[in-house]
Amino acid sequence: MKKLIDSQSWLEKEEVELLEHYLNPNQKPSAQELKDWRNHIQFIKPKNLKNLTTLGLELVKTHQNGHDLKITEEDKKAFQKAEQELGLIYNEAAYRFEGSHSTITSEQKSKSSFDPKLMQEILDGSKIELIQKVKDTLCKPEFSYHHHEKIADQRAQVLEWCKLLAKEGYGSWAFQREYGGRDDMEGYFTIMETLSYHDLSMVIKFGVQFGLWGMSIYFLGTEKHHQKYLKDIGTLELPGCFAMTETHHGSNVRGLETTATYNHQDKTFTIHTPHRDARKEYIGNAALHGQKATVFAKLIIDGEDYGVNTFVVPLRNKAGELHPGVEIEDCGPKMGLNGVDNGLIAFNKVEIPKEDMLDKFASVDDDGKFQSSISSDNKRFFTMLGTLVGGRIGIPRSGLSAAKSGLTIAIRYANQRKQFGPEGGGEVPIMNYRMHQRRLMPLVAKSYAMHFALKYLTNRFLTKSEEEGQEIEALAAGMKAYGTWFTTEALQECREACGGKGYLSENRIDALKNDTDVYTTFEGDNTVLMQLVAKSRLTEFKNEMGDMNFTTIFNYLSKQAKTSFTEKNPITVRSTDEKHLLDFDFHINAFKYRERAIVASAGQRIKRLVDDGMDSFDAVNVAQHHLINVGRSYIERKILEQFQLAVETTQNEACRKSLQQLCQLYALHTIEQNRGWYLEQGYMEGVKTKAIRKTVNQLCWETRQDAIGFTDAFGIPDKLLAAPIAF
Amino acid sequence: MKKLIDSQSWLEKEEVELLEHYLNPNQKPSAQELKDWRNHIQFIKPKNLKNLTTLGLELVKTHQNGHDLKITEEDKKAFQKAEQELGLIYNEAAYRFEGSHSTITSEQKSKSSFDPKLMQEILDGSKIELIQKVKDTLCKPEFSYHHHEKIADQRAQVLEWCKLLAKEGYGSWAFQREYGGRDDMEGYFTIMETLSYHDLSMVIKFGVQFGLWGMSIYFLGTEKHHQKYLKDIGTLELPGCFAMTETHHGSNVRGLETTATYNHQDKTFTIHTPHRDARKEYIGNAALHGQKATVFAKLIIDGEDYGVNTFVVPLRNKAGELHPGVEIEDCGPKMGLNGVDNGLIAFNKVEIPKEDMLDKFASVDDDGKFQSSISSDNKRFFTMLGTLVGGRIGIPRSGLSAAKSGLTIAIRYANQRKQFGPEGGGEVPIMNYRMHQRRLMPLVAKSYAMHFALKYLTNRFLTKSEEEGQEIEALAAGMKAYGTWFTTEALQECREACGGKGYLSENRIDALKNDTDVYTTFEGDNTVLMQLVAKSRLTEFKNEMGDMNFTTIFNYLSKQAKTSFTEKNPITVRSTDEKHLLDFDFHINAFKYRERAIVASAGQRIKRLVDDGMDSFDAVNVAQHHLINVGRSYIERKILEQFQLAVETTQNEACRKSLQQLCQLYALHTIEQNRGWYLEQGYMEGVKTKAIRKTVNQLCWETRQDAIGFTDAFGIPDKLLAAPIAF
Repeated sequence: MKKLIDSQSWLEKEEVELLEHYLNPNQKPSAQELKDWRNHIQFIKPKNLKNLTTLGLELVKTHQNGHDLKITEEDKKAFQKAEQELGLIYNEAAYRFEGSHSTITSEQKSKSSFDPKLMQEILDGSKIELIQKVKDTLCKPEFSYHHHEKIADQRAQVLEWCKLLAKEGYGSWAFQREYGGRDDMEGYFTIMETLSYHDLSMVIKFGVQFGLWGMSIYFLGTEKHHQKYLKDIGTLELPGCFAMTETHHGSNVRGLETTATYNHQDKTFTIHTPHRDARKEYIGNAALHGQKATVFAKLIIDGEDYGVNTFVVPLRNKAGELHPGVEIEDCGPKMGLNGVDNGLIAFNKVEIPKEDMLDKFASVDDDGKFQSSISSDNKRFFTMLGTLVGGRIGIPRSGLSAAKSGLTIAIRYANQRKQFGPEGGGEVPIMNYRMHQRRLMPLVAKSYAMHFALKYLTNRFLTKSEEEGQEIEALAAGMKAYGTWFTTEALQECREACGGKGYLSENRIDALKNDTDVYTTFEGDNTVLMQLVAKSRLTEFKNEMGDMNFTTIFNYLSKQAKTSFTEKNPITVRSTDEKHLLDFDFHINAFKYRERAIVASAGQRIKRLVDDGMDSFDAVNVAQHHLINVGRSYIERKILEQFQLAVETTQNEACRKSLQQLCQLYALHTIEQNRGWYLEQGYMEGVKTKAIRKTVNQLCWETRQDAIGFTDAFGIPDKLLAAPIAF
Repeated sequence: MKKLIDSQSWLEKEEVELLEHYLNPNQKPSAQELKDWRNHIQFIKPKNLKNLTTLGLELVKTHQNGHDLKITEEDKKAFQKAEQELGLIYNEAAYRFEGSHSTITSEQKSKSSFDPKLMQEILDGSKIELIQKVKDTLCKPEFSYHHHEKIADQRAQVLEWCKLLAKEGYGSWAFQREYGGRDDMEGYFTIMETLSYHDLSMVIKFGVQFGLWGMSIYFLGTEKHHQKYLKDIGTLELPGCFAMTETHHGSNVRGLETTATYNHQDKTFTIHTPHRDARKEYIGNAALHGQKATVFAKLIIDGEDYGVNTFVVPLRNKAGELHPGVEIEDCGPKMGLNGVDNGLIAFNKVEIPKEDMLDKFASVDDDGKFQSSISSDNKRFFTMLGTLVGGRIGIPRSGLSAAKSGLTIAIRYANQRKQFGPEGGGEVPIMNYRMHQRRLMPLVAKSYAMHFALKYLTNRFLTKSEEEGQEIEALAAGMKAYGTWFTTEALQECREACGGKGYLSENRIDALKNDTDVYTTFEGDNTVLMQLVAKSRLTEFKNEMGDMNFTTIFNYLSKQAKTSFTEKNPITVRSTDEKHLLDFDFHINAFKYRERAIVASAGQRIKRLVDDGMDSFDAVNVAQHHLINVGRSYIERKILEQFQLAVETTQNEACRKSLQQLCQLYALHTIEQNRGWYLEQGYMEGVKTKAIRKTVNQLCWETRQDAIGFTDAFGIPDKLLAAPIAF
């Protein structure tokens, strides 16, 4: 500073001395002097202070009266030079002296580009009335939230709620009319999804009773079982369990160790748990309320193992007394879902009548011979599991509702919560900060993407032909994994984005996050599921390839993904043209190219390893990380297709335009996350991925203005949202 | 299949007919037939079945006795062709018939490349004895874990534990000896860190009392305050609070609204909460136990605002009765840390004596005039906050301990838990799966990286000169953000990696995750802190640049990061040489290059926007996402430097080698995560980033074998680990 001052020839001697006086640390201005100066400056109310130079000139003017003080160009330059030395962003210092100061950031406001009610109709679709009915039920006083400290109280509350839901007929919705149902499977999924705006223990208890226990009777049993059980299941007269998982066999259920041994003499089965680690574990409804269970056990006839089959086994009577030979242990407190009574079940030679084998796919005939239309034990087992794929649809749909609740809360809070602001200006809503937009808006886009994708999955499941079975199973597995990972990611981000408020239980993100955390685990561990998807994709790929040699893979690729390849020209890979970057075709082609290139390279890689003499199990293990990407890229392509389709078929122009932006954001954000891969492949160059990053920022900035509308369109009743920070 | 069979001229007519018979869906083999065939094959106990061809040939051999059946080359080819048609990975089918089948994946075992005890000595360093002492305390029966359903019981338990810790002298460890302390600040951090292997509510309650309340007196008060309070704080005779945050001012604490108005007449201050949203919020110890609080409030003298200062204000007496004018509300249930009694405090004109202003940095003299050695209100405020930076060291160290507990539990479980396996072989420990290694091993590497980095940060803080103040503050802010994000990430991954077991509270990941979740928020929101780091880096950058014009930035870069630039030659950017990829110099240069290039481009970008007429506040907002990366890349470079230094200074050869691998894994995994950026910059080409991915996989595979040793070296007592799945 001293050097700078000395170099200013225009300063007079006394002026230099005064400045140097204050620069001496022992003579620096006191707090009082600084305050006086500041007050003095603010008294003249400077406006439009571009920088300190203009402030200086303003000050000079106020002292000019009487004196003939001239400001030369040289003076101005000197001011500017001094300012450049002072701070990083030099004009910031000047703002401190302004009375008020506004910026583009401060001014950004919420707007309504579309009518949220219309958008909600698009989201709800044909089930809009049922959705409203379920919401009306949940808004009744009986469903008010209560904070129960004791697990026992939570469980009692949840059971009570489930009984009320059963009374409304929601439990039997999917069952045949003769058993009190509505024969409406799609409606059942809608109910699960809508209930998930409320307490998730209630949803899972509901799902265990009507979805797992009920559907296992529905899909694995035959008419005699339907007659015997379905009605009482639907009314919750007969609470029951779905007992598949064992302590030592969670993912690898083909290896279950519980046995069901056929007794020729009295035509019964003996259900038995061979050792402690073969107990059924995490079984919902088991610790307290379940009276019967669908038990998965290896069928043994005359010492021969006929693979895993299913049996209805009693657990306790109506009075709650355990059936002889049944031992149950409570799983105890959990990270979440403490309103669900999960338990461990051991069977000590429990006998059941022959009729209680669920015999849709296999049975024991009157001569004690095994009979099945599916000869292979493996194939039969996976066919059985295949019928239960509905659980892999219900869970991500429930998770999506939880994510929507979290996002609605976080966005409403961010829209009101102000913190920091420009110097001399008011504080700014945190939703106006680019980083906050970056944290939340891609999640909003993804929640819309998942919404349309899960609707598609549900429809495919409900209308599937036999040949489509495997495709739908893979699709459900992948959507379940991708969707529930999204839920975890979204709610974690919401927690952090709401700061301390997000940590308070009253704002519900606590429960939403912890209750759904196990969604990535149950109904199939996500990592295992993604490998299942990958295997299905590789098989599909092999089938498409037919006789072709793996080395002709590139020809295959160029034929199948023609548009993608034509994009790989020197102009397109560098294109930063906005119209191109926002183009739906560019997006879907990029997704398709990635999907196909990854599946092809994974196939090649495993083939090469095996050809080189590696054991195929090892080869698959070496490529495991690669396989997860095979699954993920397939699911992402399917999701984007559905989102684009939803945009294109939206009638209302305002809604269509806004949905289009969200769809672009989902696509570009996903490409951005995979930009390393695209760059490695030469599918894009750095200029293009940088332009994509900018476009994502811009889309976040633009969609942020409709963030309230986008989340209002989820249509979550305030009473269910309940978080004080959302109001 | 039919086409294939028909094309095999060597098959005899009856053979063709038999095969075609079984291919008819109505005549397919029954379950019993399939079982018989299988038993038949297994009876001959085939071994080393490379594929179905060898199996076929084996079967032919067993039928050869008597007959003169010759196997021609043509037959062999036909077998092979048939097999190729059958499945994706053709030899997998054959394994099903093997009695036992082993693979490289199945065989991978834990080993001990080093002595975990020696490694523990390296980690514990000079504080090894204190660490042991604290662990011994925690292993006493009084510290046994209990599951308390009621929050009131949790809080009582935690208070009880803190009293026991105070009795051991841990609370006053940092205080001067005359007040019962040991004058050992480093020891205090060690205690916080070691306690964090136990219940984290206890740690935070401990930290609130001795770290926040105690250290505010220690650093902001003068001798009279030390004499008056420190001894009773250290023994927990005087529980107290640190009351800074207000509902409307969490991050932007410069805008706090609580006032402390000086009354000339009776030489007192009136502490007042002007409105509901200016209440102190989330204040630990406030809801139940705190008797006094250090309150941050704007000092007002004669209507003039002298900025935020600190005052000791009474809350309640020893009997627990609230002081007149003090109103307290309980924050209620939280996501975690429910053993800590957080509350909201409102002051309704509470009068305190003049002496209870903490007057280290500012005071009111006997004439009622404001006095301070720091003239600027802003600078004074940030100097005050700067003394409290210790909290930003204690928190990530506590979080790191929690992450270490989680990783130890998850890795021990994965080492025992078996699931799936090769066909015909036993199940495999899930830790042998590449994906599981990928999920956990980089986190183990990162926990070591953080360990050395936080040790370094602590030493810098304890030995800092005045000029280093700002550097250390930025370093602490960045390490706090990076470290606590790591904790959240690691524990989330541990939860999922342990599946259903990870969801049960008994396995402790629940509490570890939920208790630490707020670490990313308190002591400064991570996103805000990273921007603080970025601003400090930009200032530093500007200072280094001196007079230089921003356009000469590239010259600057090439001078400062010379080695990096020489690496950007056509050979290096494509190098996949293993020695190069594992080279420490390559790693640190890549980190440094990224750090410098990002800070330079962020600076340029903001400058350009401002030059183009954008308001500087808006310009910073536009670049906000970029700024977070400025902070992150700086912190990552600092961490890697410390990790490399730790490796290089390790004496024991075995430990050094193993640490080196972890360090390589940390470096390459971080580069891999940023590969998009490196590719965009042309710093690497695709062949190199692909090779890095492979090397990361390989390092995960290799370090996995020492995973048990690496986590044993954390030295967490079994009694504290406690999770049943860890044993």
